[in-house]
Amino acid sequence: MSYNSFGHLFRVMTWGESHGPALGATVDGCPPGIALSAEDLQPWLDARKPGQNRFTTQRREADEVEILSGVYEGKTTGTPIQLMIRNTDQRSKDYSEIARTFRPGHADITYWQKYGIRDPRGGGRSSARETAARVAAGGVARQVLAALAPGLSITGYMVQMGRRAIDRARFDWDAIGTNPFWCPDAKTAELWASDLDALRKDGNSVGAVIEVVARGVPAGLGAPIYAKLDSELAAAMMTINAVKGVEIGAGMGAAALTGVENADEIVMGHDGRPVFKSNHAGGILGGISTGQDVVVRFAVKPTSSILTPRRSVTIDGQDTEVVTKGRHDPCVGIRAVPVGEAMMACVLLDQMLMHRAQVGEGQGGRIG
Amino acid sequence: MSYNSFGHLFRVMTWGESHGPALGATVDGCPPGIALSAEDLQPWLDARKPGQNRFTTQRREADEVEILSGVYEGKTTGTPIQLMIRNTDQRSKDYSEIARTFRPGHADITYWQKYGIRDPRGGGRSSARETAARVAAGGVARQVLAALAPGLSITGYMVQMGRRAIDRARFDWDAIGTNPFWCPDAKTAELWASDLDALRKDGNSVGAVIEVVARGVPAGLGAPIYAKLDSELAAAMMTINAVKGVEIGAGMGAAALTGVENADEIVMGHDGRPVFKSNHAGGILGGISTGQDVVVRFAVKPTSSILTPRRSVTIDGQDTEVVTKGRHDPCVGIRAVPVGEAMMACVLLDQMLMHRAQVGEGQGGRIG
Amino acid sequence: MSYNSFGHLFRVMTWGESHGPALGATVDGCPPGIALSAEDLQPWLDARKPGQNRFTTQRREADEVEILSGVYEGKTTGTPIQLMIRNTDQRSKDYSEIARTFRPGHADITYWQKYGIRDPRGGGRSSARETAARVAAGGVARQVLAALAPGLSITGYMVQMGRRAIDRARFDWDAIGTNPFWCPDAKTAELWASDLDALRKDGNSVGAVIEVVARGVPAGLGAPIYAKLDSELAAAMMTINAVKGVEIGAGMGAAALTGVENADEIVMGHDGRPVFKSNHAGGILGGISTGQDVVVRFAVKPTSSILTPRRSVTIDGQDTEVVTKGRHDPCVGIRAVPVGEAMMACVLLDQMLMHRAQVGEGQGGRIG
Amino acid sequence: MSYNSFGHLFRVMTWGESHGPALGATVDGCPPGIALSAEDLQPWLDARKPGQNRFTTQRREADEVEILSGVYEGKTTGTPIQLMIRNTDQRSKDYSEIARTFRPGHADITYWQKYGIRDPRGGGRSSARETAARVAAGGVARQVLAALAPGLSITGYMVQMGRRAIDRARFDWDAIGTNPFWCPDAKTAELWASDLDALRKDGNSVGAVIEVVARGVPAGLGAPIYAKLDSELAAAMMTINAVKGVEIGAGMGAAALTGVENADEIVMGHDGRPVFKSNHAGGILGGISTGQDVVVRFAVKPTSSILTPRRSVTIDGQDTEVVTKGRHDPCVGIRAVPVGEAMMACVLLDQMLMHRAQVGEGQGGRIG
Repeated sequence: MSYNSFGHLFRVMTWGESHGPALGATVDGCPPGIALSAEDLQPWLDARKPGQNRFTTQRREADEVEILSGVYEGKTTGTPIQLMIRNTDQRSKDYSEIARTFRPGHADITYWQKYGIRDPRGGGRSSARETAARVAAGGVARQVLAALAPGLSITGYMVQMGRRAIDRARFDWDAIGTNPFWCPDAKTAELWASDLDALRKDGNSVGAVIEVVARGVPAGLGAPIYAKLDSELAAAMMTINAVKGVEIGAGMGAAALTGVENADEIVMGHDGRPVFKSNHAGGILGGISTGQDVVVRFAVKPTSSILTPRRSVTIDGQDTEVVTKGRHDPCVGIRAVPVGEAMMACVLLDQMLMHRAQVGEGQGGRIG
Repeated sequence: MSYNSFGHLFRVMTWGESHGPALGATVDGCPPGIALSAEDLQPWLDARKPGQNRFTTQRREADEVEILSGVYEGKTTGTPIQLMIRNTDQRSKDYSEIARTFRPGHADITYWQKYGIRDPRGGGRSSARETAARVAAGGVARQVLAALAPGLSITGYMVQMGRRAIDRARFDWDAIGTNPFWCPDAKTAELWASDLDALRKDGNSVGAVIEVVARGVPAGLGAPIYAKLDSELAAAMMTINAVKGVEIGAGMGAAALTGVENADEIVMGHDGRPVFKSNHAGGILGGISTGQDVVVRFAVKPTSSILTPRRSVTIDGQDTEVVTKGRHDPCVGIRAVPVGEAMMACVLLDQMLMHRAQVGEGQGGRIG
Repeated sequence: MSYNSFGHLFRVMTWGESHGPALGATVDGCPPGIALSAEDLQPWLDARKPGQNRFTTQRREADEVEILSGVYEGKTTGTPIQLMIRNTDQRSKDYSEIARTFRPGHADITYWQKYGIRDPRGGGRSSARETAARVAAGGVARQVLAALAPGLSITGYMVQMGRRAIDRARFDWDAIGTNPFWCPDAKTAELWASDLDALRKDGNSVGAVIEVVARGVPAGLGAPIYAKLDSELAAAMMTINAVKGVEIGAGMGAAALTGVENADEIVMGHDGRPVFKSNHAGGILGGISTGQDVVVRFAVKPTSSILTPRRSVTIDGQDTEVVTKGRHDPCVGIRAVPVGEAMMACVLLDQMLMHRAQVGEGQGGRIG
Repeated sequence: MSYNSFGHLFRVMTWGESHGPALGATVDGCPPGIALSAEDLQPWLDARKPGQNRFTTQRREADEVEILSGVYEGKTTGTPIQLMIRNTDQRSKDYSEIARTFRPGHADITYWQKYGIRDPRGGGRSSARETAARVAAGGVARQVLAALAPGLSITGYMVQMGRRAIDRARFDWDAIGTNPFWCPDAKTAELWASDLDALRKDGNSVGAVIEVVARGVPAGLGAPIYAKLDSELAAAMMTINAVKGVEIGAGMGAAALTGVENADEIVMGHDGRPVFKSNHAGGILGGISTGQDVVVRFAVKPTSSILTPRRSVTIDGQDTEVVTKGRHDPCVGIRAVPVGEAMMACVLLDQMLMHRAQVGEGQGGRIG
């Protein structure tokens, strides 16, 4: 990973600030001949778009993606795909005060300490708006995955908001799209709605846990040591704004297990292929995919922009109090769901290309 | 990160298998003029070395590191430093049976599925023995850090084994070196000892959580988007064998917090520098270090090599049962402590070099 | 170097096709706090711009660069700088015939053989139009170099066109800007003008040699083995369209020298610094700059788009004859001069950042 | 390319100094299941080995390569292959004088200026001895190429020594192995022998031009912009010690050609495949291989270590004269032939892996 790009062969570089004229992603290394249009990408952007319901920021961005290069007559040509999203709702306002004060939990203090200069408008480069570009790039990755690995699907959903987690017994894939929280447990979604209403009334915010599952991932993606699939996924998820923890399979909970409990036993299935009896491994052993579902979870901290005053300092070294007004998500975790999916798509495709580079297509060892 | 190397400017490539003649690490990009000898590195290797007490594997490896290049008259020259560790305790045994069977929780099945070939001797490249090379490289990083950032220190310790966590109220830095678990809570260390004795008697194993803290880290390391310090650390820790989750600061627990709870308030200190009143951020905001302690935690799953029989399959597609005999750690988490420290050292140095590349020395913005 | 980016720390990714809506360069890793505006970049683009005189293509492109990100209040912020250039003179024409035929000397046949798809409009991604983006990025590099190495200057010029080379005895730096060929020998420039008029009348074209000199380069840039400054420069120049050879200092001519002739003797200068008595080395020894002028030359092949019919084949495997009409440069070498300068600027800056990463500022050994 | 590694997917990192205990290369990213033993590599090392005849240095190095990792039961496993070569002929001598003086044409002055420290023993890391490691790595690449592209062959030879070039009319592939110069023109080889005897008597040395040809290269390797095959080859060759120029196909001579002369016409061959009527392109168009022979040439400067005194300076800033005694090649170009072949092998394999990553196997467009 470089400063602003990620991926080895399917490489995504994002650019742009919250309040500049535009932002975007340049996708390099995309396989040629893949069907691609702005219409293919727009639904993913719409899913992440602010203002979809009362639980996300009311900033109104069209988030329309334009493809400026890399596609000819509806197909990728193998050259860089420039995905541009114009910023349309940049309210002109006076940033002079915010430019002198550091907001607790925000990147503005570290950005200043590092670079000695910062763009205070809406968080500048550190704004979560950057994730729109990732979602666009993730849409490209999905188009390629659809061609290279037709059975592969990626689904993200929220499994915890604040102290309230879903009940896995009520897990329903179909419920995910039917509530504002991408929640697979309709009952919990209702409770979250009231939780969040209360928090917003208090000028407060809350954290969340998102889970992203990839089904139909071929065995053999990743590599043993520093290109481990789990390491790549952890790095990718940890680059999403506000993420503080990443888990694969049993995750942090693996610490509490014994070896007997943790072992995912293997038996031969009716189709002559090995079947795992459980998935504590989250679909990855020794850094390489097993063919099981790849399961990643990440924790998003509560939005730092809150109406409750918090102590802070100014650039001149004065103590002060900060209240962050403006149009902010009370739970940024909600809109992190499509972002997590996008990162999963990019990483899996990148690893798929890495794999066929080293090992070729249809290679690897058989069982049985 | 490439297949077998990590780091951008301070780059470490490890090589070698558990049962080959040697393994090692090649360190590229090391600053010149740094005092370095094998004696500087050996203590870190000794800390990781097997057979130190009854709770680690009884395999007897001298783990003596030789510096084959990159040092002249006791100082680094800026050229690659080759660190070689000979394998000395490779018991000759018959691997023909193990070579046909996949052990649950092990990389052997995925390695086979990916490459169609595998080295069954002691796990081959997937053996945790590879981490000896990381520890040696981490020792080089520490020598450089001692020169570039004299106040910086890195300490790892275990905070949970199985279901039993330390009591933070009893946290004692000085206790860490006085028990076989690198445990900062002497009382808990005693309980772990009996827990582990019981588990070993049962032919079972257990997971653990390790925390690594870096104190004295200058503000400004890392970068906003894909070179975030937390992302780099997550990637690094997740490459360690058996790690299933990584947390920064509040970690997965951040999901349960409200914005008011999570905000690390800032006040001006007596020395005219900003002071954070708490550290939920784990020393990192927006991917950049704040100057607070950098706090990383990771979960290590229980050792997969256990004496309790588990169901599995053979390479020929036959159901079977596997009991992994041999000399294995009942809790691999113990020996992961020095490895986590080594990864922290490598990442911080790498980021320090990245920072002075882009911003120069002594740059960045002042507060006050 | 990746598919479409170059540089290690000052990294430039270009994107876009000749006949798409726009093309551009994304500059990542730029130091913060550097004064930068579109006005700073435009002069370099104007120098490369087509249609400046009768010896370059009459395609009319405004080549106006827009900065979409990475700059706030006139200064770089350390984030990606998106440089976009809209394509304005894309004559709508029928590409169906050209899309079925391969032009000798062009990339269309190999592009097709590799990707199985191609964008025939004006050469698509293989068009020399891509170099406009490099020139913009080179302009950014120059702004940074002006801040980090104020005494450094970069000048390119043509030293040979077809069989006619300049007379080094008449070399005049001031002449370079006064003729359409960037020629330091005014007399030869006149002869080239008539040579080229004759060639154009014949529907023919011609090659050229460009030399780029960087003066005021600090000693110590580059590294001994695979990050050699000469290797980086060779790679960079060889990526320019139509370049077939690259030389450093004495270049290919070094083969004809004896060791006695080739040795650049060193004496102590009046200012107490070492002075080289000659510069066969082109300012680079062992891959590292000596402090002398860095001298690079590259040969540009004659424009492949000529009016003289040449035998070729169609995509269907039919023999055919090709005459390339359209608005083409009779000597692409002319417009390669600013491109060569841009590449030199980018490479030197990148190496300067690499150097201060590993060795720090003001480090290295003194003589005397 | 990083400091000491090259290649993107088939990545080679070399390490070690001329007078340390050993040097070597670590090969990462090698495809699995390839037959490989030390015996496969030794012939290439023997070809480069010093002391083979009276025209190369009389230093006696066994140059025996040991494979320390990455191979199991005679086949590559996909993990790093450590190739170690012990240094055996390090005459103990007093380096104190040479350590204070800079030799004209050598890297010692720049190494000192950059790092402020240097290893004066035999040139340290800058010694051409490093190329032994490349030759070993190139041998690995050849084993893989033999499996992936059976028809591909790579041959290097010398085409010019000093002012005397071969006569292309007498070119004979079979002559190459029959004289000490890898010369395809037996008559010229004889003249070189007397030229070189005379030069050695004078305490002088001479430069050379080496040509490396790869036959049977599939069409489609490389990429349009910054991963051009010619750029990769130029970078690779320019990293070889003493190389000052690199040419592809017509090379620098392309500047003197007209478009009509330079166009490599294409006709359909009897086998229904396109045939080029000439190869000014050196087998590469737009950065991508055409399927023709890939032809690279590079110039090696005369050995800087000569017995004729040359003026220089000491580390203390004193003028002095230097005579470089010791066992040096009068024409380093001779031993650069196997090195050039090794670099060609590594680059072609790397590009082959890059190609199948992006485009897959057996993809690309057909003609006819």
